[in-house]
Amino acid sequence: MSQDLIGTKMTDSLTDIDAVLEANLDFYRAFNERDTGAMEAIWSRTAPVLCVHPGWNALAGRDGVIQSWRAILGNPDSPRVMCHDDRAFLYDDVAIVQCEEELETGHLVATNMFIREAGTWKMIHHQASPLIVRSGEGRQGRPSPTRH
Amino acid sequence: MSQDLIGTKMTDSLTDIDAVLEANLDFYRAFNERDTGAMEAIWSRTAPVLCVHPGWNALAGRDGVIQSWRAILGNPDSPRVMCHDDRAFLYDDVAIVQCEEELETGHLVATNMFIREAGTWKMIHHQASPLIVRSGEGRQGRPSPTRH
Repeated sequence: MSQDLIGTKMTDSLTDIDAVLEANLDFYRAFNERDTGAMEAIWSRTAPVLCVHPGWNALAGRDGVIQSWRAILGNPDSPRVMCHDDRAFLYDDVAIVQCEEELETGHLVATNMFIREAGTWKMIHHQASPLIVRSGEGRQGRPSPTRH
Repeated sequence: MSQDLIGTKMTDSLTDIDAVLEANLDFYRAFNERDTGAMEAIWSRTAPVLCVHPGWNALAGRDGVIQSWRAILGNPDSPRVMCHDDRAFLYDDVAIVQCEEELETGHLVATNMFIREAGTWKMIHHQASPLIVRSGEGRQGRPSPTRH
């Protein structure tokens, strides 16, 4: 592969990563602005979608996932969430963003997945789980769920 | 598309789903048998790999992920895990399995992602988070991390 092709490939990847991170921020913007229309637009309408809210069982299928977000965004007690340390990883037409969610009451670790559809990145998976132990503070065993 | 092609496509998808679910079971087999060699073989060596153990921050990169599994599998106090309600979702060469993990101390919701590499499915992501509330028992708000 020529240097030019490598350069093009790297530029494409950087653009893709920027676009995926922007889609991820759109998700948190919709969350914080209680914008159900934007939230519904963020999720894929064609690929299978999955969602695991913190502490909940897994939801599969657009109807159940969107319904859960309508309930969350319609609840005035729902927290505001700040996303930071967001990193994107590309697998051709699928991308994963990992980030931390900062809430008033604690921190969550979130994994958000996107699929490329007609040039835009649409969400197919969200999972947020409580952050209790940072690596380096206790890596000898798998924390038991009873600790949470 | 002819009926034959539709039939072939469906058969291929079913075969892929079977293969992905089998790779997912291999992961839990390696976990329960404390088989570090099998665990290392399950994770991709070429694609970016990510892992969120319950309560931990996200690990990114094969070295950190494999090191975490060596620590967990080498710890005699690590729990045994039973996987059930496993469902696979295909996105061309990427697949997601969602399942519940049953431990003596509680239940976790796990998302395991795989990528197709040379005809086999290799793990690229694992996240397990505690299951506190099943949908239908309390869907009005996003549970706060302080509840965990």
